[in-house]
Amino acid sequence: MTESRDCVLALSGGVGGAKLSLGLADSLPPERLHVLVNTADDFEHYGLRISPDIDTHIYTLSGRANQELGWGVANETWNTMAAMEELGGETWFRLGDRDMATHLWRTQQLASGRGFCEVTADLARRLGVACHIHPMSEEPVRTTVQCREGDLSFQEYFVREQCRPEVNGFRFDGISAARPNRQVMSLLKQGSVTRVVVCPSNPFVSVDPILQVPGLWLALRDLAAPVILVSPIVAGAAIKGPAAKMMMELELPVTAEGVARHYSTRYPGLIDYFVMDESDAKLAGEIEELGLTAAVTATVMKSREDKQRLASFVLQLGETE
Amino acid sequence: MTESRDCVLALSGGVGGAKLSLGLADSLPPERLHVLVNTADDFEHYGLRISPDIDTHIYTLSGRANQELGWGVANETWNTMAAMEELGGETWFRLGDRDMATHLWRTQQLASGRGFCEVTADLARRLGVACHIHPMSEEPVRTTVQCREGDLSFQEYFVREQCRPEVNGFRFDGISAARPNRQVMSLLKQGSVTRVVVCPSNPFVSVDPILQVPGLWLALRDLAAPVILVSPIVAGAAIKGPAAKMMMELELPVTAEGVARHYSTRYPGLIDYFVMDESDAKLAGEIEELGLTAAVTATVMKSREDKQRLASFVLQLGETE
Repeated sequence: MTESRDCVLALSGGVGGAKLSLGLADSLPPERLHVLVNTADDFEHYGLRISPDIDTHIYTLSGRANQELGWGVANETWNTMAAMEELGGETWFRLGDRDMATHLWRTQQLASGRGFCEVTADLARRLGVACHIHPMSEEPVRTTVQCREGDLSFQEYFVREQCRPEVNGFRFDGISAARPNRQVMSLLKQGSVTRVVVCPSNPFVSVDPILQVPGLWLALRDLAAPVILVSPIVAGAAIKGPAAKMMMELELPVTAEGVARHYSTRYPGLIDYFVMDESDAKLAGEIEELGLTAAVTATVMKSREDKQRLASFVLQLGETE
Repeated sequence: MTESRDCVLALSGGVGGAKLSLGLADSLPPERLHVLVNTADDFEHYGLRISPDIDTHIYTLSGRANQELGWGVANETWNTMAAMEELGGETWFRLGDRDMATHLWRTQQLASGRGFCEVTADLARRLGVACHIHPMSEEPVRTTVQCREGDLSFQEYFVREQCRPEVNGFRFDGISAARPNRQVMSLLKQGSVTRVVVCPSNPFVSVDPILQVPGLWLALRDLAAPVILVSPIVAGAAIKGPAAKMMMELELPVTAEGVARHYSTRYPGLIDYFVMDESDAKLAGEIEELGLTAAVTATVMKSREDKQRLASFVLQLGETE
């Protein structure tokens, strides 16, 4: 990695967070953008190592994202899955034919002895991603969703059961033995990171695993650079995914304030700016009472311009005040 | 397996041999046909367990064979390989999108702890094959092609290098620890096999590995049932694959007689009937001198009728004499 100065570090899960990552990529020289991605959703399926949030970022940032589906790779076909159905094999996790190459290649590279972070960086480069995509840790961490009916692995919960089971809590297996991404820690230690952006990803299953890799959140808290979080809850609902449903089941208020409270309780002193949608402006006072600076703007990202506009907003927070 | 009587045991490699297997399948009640298939061509690629000769049989006998290509599965697409090319990954072994399901499913089943023979039988059944397809052994055996330029694994030689390197010999790694297929041995011991057909497959890399699994060829030699071999060399050329080229490089005569000599030298007393093409009728005398009964017929199988006709011929050999 070439020496970097004045870098932006984004923390993100999958599809929801990658929208802001794309806005940031459109707004920054690629060498200045580092995205630290959740890998606690990773799993092994049919012997393949699958990293959904990493792949979402690689496909999104290389212009390969499937716009119609909202996930996966563009121009996808599903002939392996069709043949698997004839065979009576498991098809609940839909592996597209083009996407398959990513999993095969990654699995082969890891089997050859290369490290996960190195393989991820190589994959991103081969597919034409110019900015830096980092797994949250070299070591495997795996989310278990603790449901009333029993534990489920994250993909069983998220894809197979389509988030239907009622959630009690979460466990991140392997996290105590994991270390935060070495390159990102090195940037932090060098003082190269001048802004941290927590993308509007699921607090429980996307951002918590990243922050709970031992040493990371304290390093971010102690950084001089501002930490800016964009609320994934807008007007009492999640823009994407099960965050609102989870908050309800965990008996948290399903509001931007509930999100702010989650972070300020678990990670006191971490978040400096809390970016919330205009529709939630009335909650700004409660946010400020938690010790966070509320920043109100339009946060729903539909068009490419929406993403760029929100990225510009978070990139100038604090500078224009 | 239900009890079987009056069974035909066919020994076969891939595409060439499977033509006669299909003819036999068209000519026999399915429960009476057992095909013992070479698995020394099997390999691991991208973490997947690939069994080319088994899959050729399953696709051929279930009506899924790709007629245009002459190998693989019908209605195939190649989008994983196209994406792999973009990635700069290895694409010399062309894995089709539909075929991929077979490899993924097999790999998953083996990883779950099931045995290879059981998984193969289940796969064949799920894809609608009515007769019995048996791997030559439960244990892995891997062909190394010893070339003047150095050793190559079978698929490197056959697919990647397209049989170009000059061959010195062959090594079947793992064969001394392998045991012949348990179900086939059980049929042989019960006296259920009344006819053995060695399909017109490559003697060196398809039939030799099967026969050299310890105990098999002697059990076949000691069987009362006739062993009928169909020459893969017709008019001095191989119908399919590198058999003729290999014979030339090994300094064997590239004729049906050369084939007969190979088998009678290595497996004395094994072959009873040597089926040769009409175009080689003049060699019948030399074949008989080796102690084999020469049987002359049209052996080139182009149409389905050719396959059925040759199958009928080998199935009545000895009965009409």
